[in-house]
Amino acid sequence: MPLVHDTARAFMPYPEVPVPQAATGPLAGLSFAVKDLFDVAGYPTSGGQPFVLALSGIKTRTAPTVQKLLDAGARFVGKTITDELAFSMNGQNAHFGSPINGAAPDRITGGSSSGSAAAVSHRLCDMALGTDTGGSVRAPASHCGLVGLRPTHGRISLLGALDLSPSFDTCGWFTRDLHSFARVADVLLGEDAAPLPATQRLLRPTDIWALVAPEVLDAFAAPCAKVEAALGVAVPTTVVLDSLDAMYWHYRHVQGHEAWTVDGALIERYQPPLGPGVAQRFAWAREIPDQKIAEGQAYRARFRAHMAALLGPDGVLLMPTMPDVAPRISDDEAGLESYRNRALQMLCVAGLAGLPQLSLPWATRLGAPLGLSLVGPPGSDRSLVALAQRISA
Amino acid sequence: MPLVHDTARAFMPYPEVPVPQAATGPLAGLSFAVKDLFDVAGYPTSGGQPFVLALSGIKTRTAPTVQKLLDAGARFVGKTITDELAFSMNGQNAHFGSPINGAAPDRITGGSSSGSAAAVSHRLCDMALGTDTGGSVRAPASHCGLVGLRPTHGRISLLGALDLSPSFDTCGWFTRDLHSFARVADVLLGEDAAPLPATQRLLRPTDIWALVAPEVLDAFAAPCAKVEAALGVAVPTTVVLDSLDAMYWHYRHVQGHEAWTVDGALIERYQPPLGPGVAQRFAWAREIPDQKIAEGQAYRARFRAHMAALLGPDGVLLMPTMPDVAPRISDDEAGLESYRNRALQMLCVAGLAGLPQLSLPWATRLGAPLGLSLVGPPGSDRSLVALAQRISA
Repeated sequence: MPLVHDTARAFMPYPEVPVPQAATGPLAGLSFAVKDLFDVAGYPTSGGQPFVLALSGIKTRTAPTVQKLLDAGARFVGKTITDELAFSMNGQNAHFGSPINGAAPDRITGGSSSGSAAAVSHRLCDMALGTDTGGSVRAPASHCGLVGLRPTHGRISLLGALDLSPSFDTCGWFTRDLHSFARVADVLLGEDAAPLPATQRLLRPTDIWALVAPEVLDAFAAPCAKVEAALGVAVPTTVVLDSLDAMYWHYRHVQGHEAWTVDGALIERYQPPLGPGVAQRFAWAREIPDQKIAEGQAYRARFRAHMAALLGPDGVLLMPTMPDVAPRISDDEAGLESYRNRALQMLCVAGLAGLPQLSLPWATRLGAPLGLSLVGPPGSDRSLVALAQRISA
Repeated sequence: MPLVHDTARAFMPYPEVPVPQAATGPLAGLSFAVKDLFDVAGYPTSGGQPFVLALSGIKTRTAPTVQKLLDAGARFVGKTITDELAFSMNGQNAHFGSPINGAAPDRITGGSSSGSAAAVSHRLCDMALGTDTGGSVRAPASHCGLVGLRPTHGRISLLGALDLSPSFDTCGWFTRDLHSFARVADVLLGEDAAPLPATQRLLRPTDIWALVAPEVLDAFAAPCAKVEAALGVAVPTTVVLDSLDAMYWHYRHVQGHEAWTVDGALIERYQPPLGPGVAQRFAWAREIPDQKIAEGQAYRARFRAHMAALLGPDGVLLMPTMPDVAPRISDDEAGLESYRNRALQMLCVAGLAGLPQLSLPWATRLGAPLGLSLVGPPGSDRSLVALAQRISA
């Protein structure tokens, strides 16, 4: 039986197996859940896909990042439902169902770290591990009113976790509050390689903000003003990143190609029934022409350099995490797909450039949460968390 | 990795774990597969449902009926896909896919013992264990051109197997030929408690045959004539069983009620997404009024007595197993549901009366198999197999 009574429908119902933790440590007293992409000894790993679950067997090793949390004294409470093969942003899994958004039960959690966000938003644990390839931590953080980080690419180990698109995959996490978030950051991030200086340049990417409807913009006005005030910014510096269309398509081509490289063999061998959207995306990913992939990879290298130059060591982008509050559960697949594509236009910035992005639950609209994001230079992850604490102090 | 290269998409892809068998015995040289409702030590048991798979853990005991086969020297080759929670007759599982019918690849296998029938029809093993509640062995036997038995209710142990509707659930099996079938019968059935006498009364239930379209009737003409000739019957005795509508509805009410009793708690607790048809049937089963259940149970007792009197110790019904060859894979859910309901009118006879029914691959139409059935008195299972051998000799 699972370790927690799962009011959020967030957890995989694996039989309980003890997962030892350190008797004490910096995370003592903190409970955590793990997205079912990470191996935990004694449990299978499903990736939200029944064939993967059947193939998995019981894992004998625990993923190093999970082990770090255990070694720091955090208590494991269970594995959470992920969107199928992590290749969805809806928080709806055709085989394992839809975890419930604790902040807005009539709205999707977002995904693919859906169960992790649901578990934390329902207070079933203090912290939950997720992964973020194209927005899988940031989207549910925004939708469920949580703090969530997509770290600098490569900063937190994904060993012992199922891949989606390795050159974009990152390991992030959720908490309800910044204090807990910072405790976990100390354990998982340690010191920054490139800490932000004492004074930052706050940058407002006008092309990203242009994706947001006026009524949503209103909801962000007060939290943005608070950030600016805290940083002593009178008039925010505006920047333009690049063609949203170019970013979006190059991101999708490279990411889709890697997803097919990772999962195509399983899909071709077993022909597993895949959920709505997921099946279509893999079918599309399979057919991406080599030319598009090469163009995407070249674009990414240029975009990375462009963003590094734009941010320098002290630039921080202030931007919405998602275009709006979470879509309603009752929205149809076409509506969700259109929302997903708009969201990817803002999410792909940090993805393409490998930058850390911290989503903060600082806005609301229609009674549902909306995340505001800080995006910093590579290696500034821990500083972003400290900056957020300074702003909210 | 699975033990066999699965051209039929019949097997669950569980990691291979050795399952010891006796060095020799009456089933030496015979390979077998097991429907994934039965526990096999070292493997999980999914029932074709992802939550059940997640909850299962690795089983430490092997179901006694599987153990009997191993003790007789048969070699285990893997666990086969079942329709979801065994509550479908289509051979299509929304989570684990559709095994392929080796006798008619453009047609459904039938279910719920879909993977077992697919594996045998593709010659991936010699024999496969299934279960039959409402037709789950008989339907795929007919559709895939196999010998298949629904035994007398209670005759073969279902310990260590997932229930569907216990007062109807039986353990059956498939082979391609009667010789292998008889070898397995010796092991799983042993001696009949009520063997058929040397001379049988062949009975033709006209109400059941009236369910069959003229062109299908034509396909059965020659095999029926062969049976009658072998038994020395000049003019077959016709019988009328009862109102098809009464049999069908009373069967469905009692069976549906038991299915909800067995699976309702899982469905309510986890709200697993269920495949098309399955979800609707459980939703329907949940609402069956107590009055209907009581009426069904009373009817079943009367029908059982009526059939016992009709058959006596020597009566054998000769009837079609299914209304026609298997529907095409491309048929829609509505078409499959309508075929299923027609099929249940003939399948529910043995189900309600607890009688053994042996389906024999003795007819074809449109190049696809059609099963002809012998239904005998309770406890005459082994005699039915011997009778089929005598007829086909």
